[in-house]
Amino acid sequence: MTRLIAIDWGTSSLRGALLDSNGKVLEERSDARGILTVPTGGFPEVFETLFGDWMRLEDTRCLISGMAGSKQGWIEAPYCACPAGRVEVGRKIIDIHALADMPGARIAIVPGLSDEHDGVPDVMRGEEVQIFGAMSITGQDDGVFVLPGTHNKWVTVKKGRVTGFRTYMTGEFYALLSQHSILSRTLDASAPLDEASFLEGVTRADNGHGLLHNAFGARTLALFERMPREELASYLSGLLIGEELRTQSLQAVGEVVLIGSSALTQRYTLALRATGVVTRTLGAEATWAGLHALSGFLDTDLRTPA
Amino acid sequence: MTRLIAIDWGTSSLRGALLDSNGKVLEERSDARGILTVPTGGFPEVFETLFGDWMRLEDTRCLISGMAGSKQGWIEAPYCACPAGRVEVGRKIIDIHALADMPGARIAIVPGLSDEHDGVPDVMRGEEVQIFGAMSITGQDDGVFVLPGTHNKWVTVKKGRVTGFRTYMTGEFYALLSQHSILSRTLDASAPLDEASFLEGVTRADNGHGLLHNAFGARTLALFERMPREELASYLSGLLIGEELRTQSLQAVGEVVLIGSSALTQRYTLALRATGVVTRTLGAEATWAGLHALSGFLDTDLRTPA
Repeated sequence: MTRLIAIDWGTSSLRGALLDSNGKVLEERSDARGILTVPTGGFPEVFETLFGDWMRLEDTRCLISGMAGSKQGWIEAPYCACPAGRVEVGRKIIDIHALADMPGARIAIVPGLSDEHDGVPDVMRGEEVQIFGAMSITGQDDGVFVLPGTHNKWVTVKKGRVTGFRTYMTGEFYALLSQHSILSRTLDASAPLDEASFLEGVTRADNGHGLLHNAFGARTLALFERMPREELASYLSGLLIGEELRTQSLQAVGEVVLIGSSALTQRYTLALRATGVVTRTLGAEATWAGLHALSGFLDTDLRTPA
Repeated sequence: MTRLIAIDWGTSSLRGALLDSNGKVLEERSDARGILTVPTGGFPEVFETLFGDWMRLEDTRCLISGMAGSKQGWIEAPYCACPAGRVEVGRKIIDIHALADMPGARIAIVPGLSDEHDGVPDVMRGEEVQIFGAMSITGQDDGVFVLPGTHNKWVTVKKGRVTGFRTYMTGEFYALLSQHSILSRTLDASAPLDEASFLEGVTRADNGHGLLHNAFGARTLALFERMPREELASYLSGLLIGEELRTQSLQAVGEVVLIGSSALTQRYTLALRATGVVTRTLGAEATWAGLHALSGFLDTDLRTPA
């Protein structure tokens, strides 16, 4: 029985799963050793520490997605340009011959996707795998897929191929504003989500005055005691997600597929529902299904690092 | 001859000028002791250190604008609601009896302005004085006045009164993004202004995809080496100022009066000129002229602290 070690190796953390030949998860692991924590040349050792025992199981291969394929990662896997489906991405998977004591071991890295809008490039690494997984799980190969996170992705899929996408720094703006701006003095970032204040922010974002102005309202609402301190973080989150939604064309969109942590997909579900858009939500299972769907390419002649 | 000590006491710094009875500047001073550096109850001492020698000149009074009138300042001078002109603001000037060894000294604080949009308050402290000064210098008592800074103000003036204004966190967003975000890794915030990249950012801001998306372009343009590192800060600045301009109604606006530091007013001049709007620029002289214009109220019965 062929097993697959499926890994999403990100900037600040990583997750791995051992899958059986049908893609069923046998075991999961996560770790804080994101690529920024790994010294130059240190990837084989970290990999061995985290997944060496799995690799020594009979007939086991490994496929890695995410920032491990970036310039700062293990091996650079150059971006695959949109439009791209599983086949285009699969053909650009890069083989790694990295482990001295496992010469026959097959470990490979999935490339990210690139797109371009009016001369400005856009990129993703790891999300493409989640999208392929979501298509595999839902059977949906047309539509809009949204992947909330530090750098959110809005992705258009047609006939099983990613035709284009845009990145939004929504998660990073939220962190900057709630931790480092003047707003951090009055809001409680640890307070639980308040749905009413969140949706008030979503609505306010569409008032035509822009984020730079609306964000200041989160300061004055506190100053004039118009909103309780514990609701301000939800309001700010709503302003940001509402700003993101404001620029989307959602009229003709059917169901939106959300892929990510439940804390984030919950917010997008609320905001999209408020505009009349139906959503469906997936979590880590999309990553595992995507890497499983791409694992057939491990039986082909893979590219080697440039 | 009656002299006036005019002070704009801000959050992180302060500026003062000694004016003669005609409002002519005799001497200027600035200092880093903004209100955040002054301990509770410490304002009289800091004032004495910085301006005690001026106060001991014969027939000298003092008028202070800015955050010194906030809750965290010397004495709270409650906001004056818009619409408000010199008379409304002048009548809410607050007297300070603060200096034990100068019992007859007249020192007073100018209130800020408040406005409200759909239940969300907006505030300024100090800018109202600069506007009154600009009106006094230019003779213009109708139009749009823009005060770039950490929290930029766009102000509408009719018949000499501020009828409304909005705050934009443009300066603070620029600082957050250039110093604390992923963009900080690739841009050189100390590089001089590159006008072409700045204006490219201003134009891009109006593409309908919003700041959260466009800001990520400053990352990918660096990643793909499409823009030199030393131009990225100008591009980001253009994206932010363009985002601010995007939400203004500038069709029917005549000359816009810009008040602020030359480093910032230069950028707004470039961006506004690109959209066909004529500008006129004023600096610190607007503050001194505004405080001088309000100084007549020092001869009236002033309010005392609540």
